[in-house]
Amino acid sequence: MSQKPSIPKGTRDFGCPEMARRYYIFDTLRDVFRSFGYAQIETPAMEGLDTLLGKYGEEGDKLLYRIQNSGEKAALAPEKGLRYDLTVPFARFVAQHRGEIAFPFKRFQIQPVWRADRPQKGRYREFYQCDVDVIGSPSQLNELELVQITQEVFRRLGVSVLLKINNRKVLTGLAEICGFPDKVVDITVAIDKIDKIGIDAVEAEMLEKGLTPEAVKVLRPVLESKGGFEEKMALMRGLMTGVSAEGVRGLDELDELFGLIAAAGISMPVELDLSLARGLNYYTGAIFEVKALDWQIGSICGGGRYDNLTGIFGLPGVSGVGISFGADRIYDVLVGLDKFPAGLESVATVLFANMGAAEAAWVLPLASALRAAGISVEIYPESAKLRKQFDYADAKGIPFISINGENEMAGNKLNIKNLASGEQKEFPIGDIAAICNFLRV
Amino acid sequence: MSQKPSIPKGTRDFGCPEMARRYYIFDTLRDVFRSFGYAQIETPAMEGLDTLLGKYGEEGDKLLYRIQNSGEKAALAPEKGLRYDLTVPFARFVAQHRGEIAFPFKRFQIQPVWRADRPQKGRYREFYQCDVDVIGSPSQLNELELVQITQEVFRRLGVSVLLKINNRKVLTGLAEICGFPDKVVDITVAIDKIDKIGIDAVEAEMLEKGLTPEAVKVLRPVLESKGGFEEKMALMRGLMTGVSAEGVRGLDELDELFGLIAAAGISMPVELDLSLARGLNYYTGAIFEVKALDWQIGSICGGGRYDNLTGIFGLPGVSGVGISFGADRIYDVLVGLDKFPAGLESVATVLFANMGAAEAAWVLPLASALRAAGISVEIYPESAKLRKQFDYADAKGIPFISINGENEMAGNKLNIKNLASGEQKEFPIGDIAAICNFLRV
Repeated sequence: MSQKPSIPKGTRDFGCPEMARRYYIFDTLRDVFRSFGYAQIETPAMEGLDTLLGKYGEEGDKLLYRIQNSGEKAALAPEKGLRYDLTVPFARFVAQHRGEIAFPFKRFQIQPVWRADRPQKGRYREFYQCDVDVIGSPSQLNELELVQITQEVFRRLGVSVLLKINNRKVLTGLAEICGFPDKVVDITVAIDKIDKIGIDAVEAEMLEKGLTPEAVKVLRPVLESKGGFEEKMALMRGLMTGVSAEGVRGLDELDELFGLIAAAGISMPVELDLSLARGLNYYTGAIFEVKALDWQIGSICGGGRYDNLTGIFGLPGVSGVGISFGADRIYDVLVGLDKFPAGLESVATVLFANMGAAEAAWVLPLASALRAAGISVEIYPESAKLRKQFDYADAKGIPFISINGENEMAGNKLNIKNLASGEQKEFPIGDIAAICNFLRV
Repeated sequence: MSQKPSIPKGTRDFGCPEMARRYYIFDTLRDVFRSFGYAQIETPAMEGLDTLLGKYGEEGDKLLYRIQNSGEKAALAPEKGLRYDLTVPFARFVAQHRGEIAFPFKRFQIQPVWRADRPQKGRYREFYQCDVDVIGSPSQLNELELVQITQEVFRRLGVSVLLKINNRKVLTGLAEICGFPDKVVDITVAIDKIDKIGIDAVEAEMLEKGLTPEAVKVLRPVLESKGGFEEKMALMRGLMTGVSAEGVRGLDELDELFGLIAAAGISMPVELDLSLARGLNYYTGAIFEVKALDWQIGSICGGGRYDNLTGIFGLPGVSGVGISFGADRIYDVLVGLDKFPAGLESVATVLFANMGAAEAAWVLPLASALRAAGISVEIYPESAKLRKQFDYADAKGIPFISINGENEMAGNKLNIKNLASGEQKEFPIGDIAAICNFLRV
């Protein structure tokens, strides 16, 4: 009886080269997050369904993986589901452990999430999220810190990025000044299409969505504006002052944040993008999105401020801001731009060929001495044909091979060959320093 | 509407201090595994139920978490389950990717597994396994390498351990020489109790299990033997030679492995333990178990050789050997023996107090300069009462605080206080080297 081995649709195995690269990304994120004083948490893969349901909209509820109850309750409705994102478990964590947490709470979390989505290119049913959040402080110094973290992460990864910033309150303001406060989404979606379909088509779409010609006219100067940050801000401030208090608050926030970004000397390009609307029914202040400048792939990082994430879990009035790094897309960008450093894989420096039981036993203490000196060593476990042993070194990319038979044993010599240059040398077995030197070429 | 936040029974949240400690263990394992040329893989949390069912016995099948199908198939029997261990997914991985793998394949895997077990102290429904295996080589140099890895892991963690070794073929031999080849488990379980209940009670138990008095008499010398490795081996060789070919093969393997351990200069205590029987219907050669010498907790690491793990997935005749490190128990040992190093948590070196918007903006470029010099810096995001800001530094264990108001701004000075010693100093803001020096005390 033999089964054809396979994994569920939309999931992935990660072999050795991918894992080394994935951990390069995770470790970079971890190092940067930690250097800004963020601490890591982990939450269980399974959460109670009551924790998860109703948090992701109707569509999200459908995409939750539900776990069959075990034992006698197997036939009853499931009580547990798999983590769908890291945000809701984080909110649950903060509310549950509020007594043990020092606020403002700066945490990061790097764990897989699961969604019963239709799998397609670049969309998986299991994927890692890498979230960094500050909770318990409304100050925009937190937004700035996330901007600094973003800059440092992509500086270390060697990827040039553009950070786009928007503010949810400004979007509300735009909807209010044209008299359709309930049409925030429609207006934002329409603005987003200007570059693609032009201003006339955008206006037609807004009319179709139920806006009046007067409302569309109010928005026209904003849609037409080709100016930079200052011009756009002045334009909106003129339109919103005295009309939308929320909109003006949003403009004040944008002014403050761009001021902080300038004061902190951020060198990454940052731009105001009024069409940015990620997680609209969720964010309440700043909205962020990061794009790679030299690789076409959509956003590789995004986030924003939310004002009442933990309220549903009994801890109201706690404001937070966070961003999420898209590990899969960052991976694709680094492959595309050839930015993964060489030598990420765990490859031994030298392979001791196996010439038989006596020779292998003779080599053991030498291998231990080299390991103690910090050299990564493999001993080929079988006394197989030398060809096969060379092939193994070649397949794993091991740069040196040491072949020692009766002559070397009798002469207390170690024979080592540099597989790239072909250079071959003999060393007295006691001269670990010289051996290390040769291996560190 | 507010929910009482909670997580499913038998699962855990890991807060910042635990996570820092857990990662210390995972990173140590990862570093050691890599230094011996092992490469990391990850497999999906979900596997097809056909991959999982029938691999863990009837009891294991019951403890598998099954995932409800999504969409139209929700009412049908589940097709997917959560990973129950790392061994079966590894076997599936090897069979599925055999074409891309260089054998012998040395891999490690550190991922959570899920079991619908009754939760109790120290037993969780979600826990990490840390497995390291070589597959595709019958040589006992692989067993030796795992012994070396074990020694190096616990040397780095600062824990004194005892490695116990047994061999499944020897257990078969013992069952064969007394004429009850099908009673391997009963005999091994009985031997395991000698220290606790004495030889008479053990013999009574074996009789109860269906062994004859003659059979028990054959085993008596082995049970009574108080000798060391050499004596026990000589005794068993005398009993098995010409009676159990399998038993003799097992003794030969033990001789070889203990010889390799001596040749490699292993300094960790290693002993032969005939009662060791982990995973009996699974292991075919060497069996390993590690105990902490100075902390009572059961085994913290175990494994052995298996001869046909991948056969069920269509790749027969591949021998492997592996060990699994019990992260939760190792954690408890390190806590118990106070062996976690200080400073594992990601704590900033200096907290810039927030004295208002202008002061915070003034401090931003200084914070960036210190970060660029490798100092981890936090800026308190709110201009809260100083008491609260000190409490924050205290709760997070931040060792320095920098409080800068109008005077410092006017004088281009940075004021830094060492919270432990109380020492306070002023620095010209340009003298980053002197500031770093003070912070690195």
